[in-house]
Amino acid sequence: MARKDPEIITEKDLMRRWSRSMRAQGKTIGLVPTMGYLHQGHISLVKEAQEHADLIVVSIYVNPCQFAPSEDLATYPSDFQGDIEKLRALSGGVDVVFHPQNLYDYGTSGAVSENNDASGNSCSSQSGDDKEKRAEGAAVSCIGERQYGHETWVRVERLEKGMCGKSRPIFFRGVATVVTKLFNIVEPDIAVFGKKDYQQWRIICRMVRDLDFSINVVGSEIVRDADGLAMSSRNVHLSPEERKKALSINKALSRAKLAAQSGQVSCRELRNSVTQAISESGGKIDYAEIVDQESLEAVEEIKRPVVFCIAAWFGKVRLIDNIEINV
Amino acid sequence: MARKDPEIITEKDLMRRWSRSMRAQGKTIGLVPTMGYLHQGHISLVKEAQEHADLIVVSIYVNPCQFAPSEDLATYPSDFQGDIEKLRALSGGVDVVFHPQNLYDYGTSGAVSENNDASGNSCSSQSGDDKEKRAEGAAVSCIGERQYGHETWVRVERLEKGMCGKSRPIFFRGVATVVTKLFNIVEPDIAVFGKKDYQQWRIICRMVRDLDFSINVVGSEIVRDADGLAMSSRNVHLSPEERKKALSINKALSRAKLAAQSGQVSCRELRNSVTQAISESGGKIDYAEIVDQESLEAVEEIKRPVVFCIAAWFGKVRLIDNIEINV
Repeated sequence: MARKDPEIITEKDLMRRWSRSMRAQGKTIGLVPTMGYLHQGHISLVKEAQEHADLIVVSIYVNPCQFAPSEDLATYPSDFQGDIEKLRALSGGVDVVFHPQNLYDYGTSGAVSENNDASGNSCSSQSGDDKEKRAEGAAVSCIGERQYGHETWVRVERLEKGMCGKSRPIFFRGVATVVTKLFNIVEPDIAVFGKKDYQQWRIICRMVRDLDFSINVVGSEIVRDADGLAMSSRNVHLSPEERKKALSINKALSRAKLAAQSGQVSCRELRNSVTQAISESGGKIDYAEIVDQESLEAVEEIKRPVVFCIAAWFGKVRLIDNIEINV
Repeated sequence: MARKDPEIITEKDLMRRWSRSMRAQGKTIGLVPTMGYLHQGHISLVKEAQEHADLIVVSIYVNPCQFAPSEDLATYPSDFQGDIEKLRALSGGVDVVFHPQNLYDYGTSGAVSENNDASGNSCSSQSGDDKEKRAEGAAVSCIGERQYGHETWVRVERLEKGMCGKSRPIFFRGVATVVTKLFNIVEPDIAVFGKKDYQQWRIICRMVRDLDFSINVVGSEIVRDADGLAMSSRNVHLSPEERKKALSINKALSRAKLAAQSGQVSCRELRNSVTQAISESGGKIDYAEIVDQESLEAVEEIKRPVVFCIAAWFGKVRLIDNIEINV
């Protein structure tokens, strides 16, 4: 089968024009939002999208708004040419890669200071205003908010609070906002999100419902390497030894699922075994929570479908993973 | 000219289907969001929309999310049949009146309690959860958040803080969120907002820019009764005497504009004259601020275009008004 070269679009207006001309022809559009450095996990999202839509748009954009200044924006891996090759090689292919330079640069109008010391993905220099905000404990991202004058945020207030929201307080605000922007630019009929980012997936589902987006959100199953590690762009930063240790996450989660299915319904017991196993393997637990699959509220005893979610550090890399337990 | 009967649509899906079928025929759609009890101010918004779009949708929906429990949701005036008559009588007419019953009722999925004690526009009974939130000083609206499970909010964080945002801390969150929902349901090409609600208009403009809505937001000039009072659905609650007193707002603002144009650039002086005049007429000032027309930041001396914004109580009615001063 001939390889399909995706059209690369970098401008919002051109992206929207493409979508509208396709919709006028009766085509449906599937969106797969990514931050690039694509792996088989992403490819599985694209394949999922192909099942639901006539045409596929993959966005590649490292969103500065979901990174705090202390986080790894500067070292987030990227390989745009490699990404394009992977998409070209994919059966059925991809129609458009939307690759904007800066989704928050609206031109000069609306900027609220003369400060021009930050641009693109850099997050090293923050304006005085941002420093003040940080001193007050307020949310600050890597966007250069004062420079660009961006000030509108979408918050999913209950679902964003727990788990990853605790250690990354601005993360889901940034995700919900950039996804809203992408939805408004690409105007897709369906959008695919990976269930590895379980909380993110549920937040997007809730946001789509609450804001009446006419978009079908599809959750796609976790893809694992042969050794069981959930695929993530950040895995590249793991040393071989850290990677080996990190296998403890999936092993412990799988054991917990088996135990639950064999009648162990106490979440405290299950959490204890899992955190102990990961800690003994050299991981540093950020959280280990068993929550309702939809509300993400903590559960004491497993009586209905739950999901066991983990975040843990191995060296300088923070990994997340989860397993659904349907009893 | 024959009167045009607007089609009345109450369901989100049917509304979106209508818009999409019209767009597929190459028509542009103008949206005029209202809370009903229409007056000549609303009619001027519709006429403005007619200038910019082929087809007109007027939404009539009293949005519980922008009212705090202490506010006047229960007494907000309504006259749906009268509204339809006014729109029928309008030259050129209106194509659709979108009149949903409850934009926040998503069915049972997502509700987080069994509590069914609130519905529709009633705001008298709040769930225990809402009471707790209020005790913590958190934002609570009249929506019955726990009942419907709605938890996604659009915030325009800088512009929403001052002026009306000070005395009505949940107001603009409710406005930005319901307008996002209406935009996603109606999918208009343009939307018209009145400049009487100056801060609201600027917030919607900023939100549209920041979230990449493909919608042209048009600001429409204030419409006044013959005596100079800015038209508002709430004026109906003024006694004849209160109404007479309330004329002091526009009189004082007009005098301030003349003074500024004659060289009085000190905002402190201008504010003092206006607040004194309104207070002496029996009004109770909520705020009187002279701000930059775009950033809405307070100005000390008038050197560039500003807007003088007022909110004041006359009896139990809170009125807002403003005047642009372009020096």
